[in-house]
Amino acid sequence: MQTTLPLASVKKLGEFVDQDVRLRGWLYGGRSSGKIAFLMIRDGTGVVQGVLAKSDVEDEEMFQAARKIPQESSIIVAGKVRQDDRAPGGYELLLSHVETYSEAGEYPITPKEHGQSFLMDHRHLWLRSRLPHAILSIRSSVEFALRSFFDREGFTLVDAPIFTPNACEGTSTLFQTDYFDKQAYLTQSGQLYMEAAAAAFGNVYCFGPTFRAEKSKTRRHLTEFWMLEPEMAWADIDDVMQLAENMIASVIGTVLERNAADLATLERDPAKLEAIRPPFPRITYAEALEVLAKQGKTLAWGDDFGGEDETIIANSFAKPVFVHRWPREAKAFYMAPDPEDDRLVLGVDLIAPEGYGEIIGGGQRADSLTYLEEQIAAHDLPPEAFEWYMDLRRFGSVPHAGFGIGLERFVGWICGTHHVREVIPFPRTMNRLSP
Amino acid sequence: MQTTLPLASVKKLGEFVDQDVRLRGWLYGGRSSGKIAFLMIRDGTGVVQGVLAKSDVEDEEMFQAARKIPQESSIIVAGKVRQDDRAPGGYELLLSHVETYSEAGEYPITPKEHGQSFLMDHRHLWLRSRLPHAILSIRSSVEFALRSFFDREGFTLVDAPIFTPNACEGTSTLFQTDYFDKQAYLTQSGQLYMEAAAAAFGNVYCFGPTFRAEKSKTRRHLTEFWMLEPEMAWADIDDVMQLAENMIASVIGTVLERNAADLATLERDPAKLEAIRPPFPRITYAEALEVLAKQGKTLAWGDDFGGEDETIIANSFAKPVFVHRWPREAKAFYMAPDPEDDRLVLGVDLIAPEGYGEIIGGGQRADSLTYLEEQIAAHDLPPEAFEWYMDLRRFGSVPHAGFGIGLERFVGWICGTHHVREVIPFPRTMNRLSP
Repeated sequence: MQTTLPLASVKKLGEFVDQDVRLRGWLYGGRSSGKIAFLMIRDGTGVVQGVLAKSDVEDEEMFQAARKIPQESSIIVAGKVRQDDRAPGGYELLLSHVETYSEAGEYPITPKEHGQSFLMDHRHLWLRSRLPHAILSIRSSVEFALRSFFDREGFTLVDAPIFTPNACEGTSTLFQTDYFDKQAYLTQSGQLYMEAAAAAFGNVYCFGPTFRAEKSKTRRHLTEFWMLEPEMAWADIDDVMQLAENMIASVIGTVLERNAADLATLERDPAKLEAIRPPFPRITYAEALEVLAKQGKTLAWGDDFGGEDETIIANSFAKPVFVHRWPREAKAFYMAPDPEDDRLVLGVDLIAPEGYGEIIGGGQRADSLTYLEEQIAAHDLPPEAFEWYMDLRRFGSVPHAGFGIGLERFVGWICGTHHVREVIPFPRTMNRLSP
Repeated sequence: MQTTLPLASVKKLGEFVDQDVRLRGWLYGGRSSGKIAFLMIRDGTGVVQGVLAKSDVEDEEMFQAARKIPQESSIIVAGKVRQDDRAPGGYELLLSHVETYSEAGEYPITPKEHGQSFLMDHRHLWLRSRLPHAILSIRSSVEFALRSFFDREGFTLVDAPIFTPNACEGTSTLFQTDYFDKQAYLTQSGQLYMEAAAAAFGNVYCFGPTFRAEKSKTRRHLTEFWMLEPEMAWADIDDVMQLAENMIASVIGTVLERNAADLATLERDPAKLEAIRPPFPRITYAEALEVLAKQGKTLAWGDDFGGEDETIIANSFAKPVFVHRWPREAKAFYMAPDPEDDRLVLGVDLIAPEGYGEIIGGGQRADSLTYLEEQIAAHDLPPEAFEWYMDLRRFGSVPHAGFGIGLERFVGWICGTHHVREVIPFPRTMNRLSP
């Protein structure tokens, strides 16, 4: 083969129309007759069909060998790029040369249906298949779009620690580790740290893995998942809703632009995503109860919503919906009280459409030292563990607010994926710790 | 106060020259006479001097009150923006209104010298001080610049798992946690997972926290630190060096542009960073031994370098220096053998200038199944734990290469910071797990 030929990637074939190029990748699949072979070649950036005519190759031996290359063998090919609007991606390769770099053994993932457990046992290989590839390409876009959004908006990234010293609310859902002569716990949220950082930097966010040792096998739970948590000084619950809706619209806009082919692979209707434009509807907890009651689901005042309730609420709106101003007992101790109704706190959840449930939880934080001390006592929390957190109210307390968005639930919704384990490269659940 | 005044941030005062604005922040410091008070106001985006003349405020009571506001109280001010080239940042505020939102208690961090331990105990407040603020602003820029670089270069972000199932090389530096009925270990590197991902996506990277339970108290060690690990399919050791030097030059360029004021705060000479342009010198391990010998430091062939050795090598060059082609025994089992000298493997380290030591380690990976099996046996590693990793050689093995860069060491070098604990928001070391 002429190694002087330009090296192309599937994604950039359009830059080489009618030119001869080299391409390196893996054999994704193929079929052949006595005179012509079709090789599907993937290189990580996409899949292209290579057409190998017996009459076009250097020698017949190469043609016969190419027909027998096992699936997932690594190959180096050369050929001319032809525009073909019927081809997926718009191009095909008229091959003149095919060589195998490393011949694959019998590939365990075949076109037949495999169970989820088998596929997840082979996650290190399954990543190469079309659906996981499309989902994780979207995940990558979403993560960068999120970071780009916060960078543009002037937020400072402040990484929250993973090791935390206290198990304030019990150890039942905490992962615990020996930490030299102490015990440490793996973080469930960076929020308290972000409150400290907001007083130093104004607007901040963290974005990293968080952990939950829940004995839960639902399709919405992972033991290890990524969470983004912005926090703003001098901000209130309305600022949270505005930031959240702008963020979601911005990220979805990026995915529609960058990942159109991936959405098509997933058969995800882009029109459903295009409709996600601010403002999103905003209803109070009390109004949400009415929505549920109208659908025949009566909850007691103070109840939190289950997954089914969230779906009923979501289905009553075309866009994600904010539910704000919750009963105090349904939310965490640090939520700011509603100045207009002391049964309520200024918490807000965002419920995604199509049954994807709560993807954001946040709100305004209590900035009064006295109120916070009362709440810590009322929740039987150890005040000494919160001394540093109280310092934020002792030294220049300001109204401040923020939220957390679970990456996997967000990406799951965008992709239209049933189970969150499919939207993280190497999922960790109660029953899965490998590969 | 007229709440209709536009709300400014310190960073954006230049957009409001000669206009009246509102500003919300914290009192960073001040001094006053009977007729005039100077208030240093910080808002997270910067610090501005506010000038309050008794004759300019609405009433004398406000002037007297403003003089007595304790440090770090949260305040809301109004005033006219004046350009003043002598002022830090180029602007000052001629104040007409000052009100306290929350009066601070006696602030524990005073202008006097505090010990590191005291400051780190108050890290939640110390973040507000000039030096930590500058360092962590640079850290935020570096992280986004790194992600932007890999996004531009077409790399897919593939998050590596934190929980891993095996303690292949012993548990001595691993953090361990109960994982339901199993044991899990916290990741020390995402590399093996990135090798799987590179075969699916071509060029990939992960960037997240990694963990090391080392009983080490040196200035270069943290138990929890962030690491970025790119991996490229169809790539070799030269590609690694080229990618690494382009990445470093790109990130430093961004910091010079975005964080000039922070570098000035740190008294970090930008000329030293401006000089960091590719190509970086590339020497073999054997050549590095000669460099050391010339400086009177004789190492046996096969020895790894200590911190002092790295400094000697670094000081022999004006830029970061690559040391490549290491003795097999000095490097990990997965390194590709050097086809030209079977005592060597295709590993490469990058040593930063000015004594900041190794910031990158990487190289080309072994892609031969047979060789890898031999190495796993030779290192007494349990082959069953590497079954999935061997699959990457069974099914379409390709030449591939990558590296890991430790974020804190990189940022420490950029900032000229002595101890890596200063470049992470909430450091975790052998003796520190809080706040």
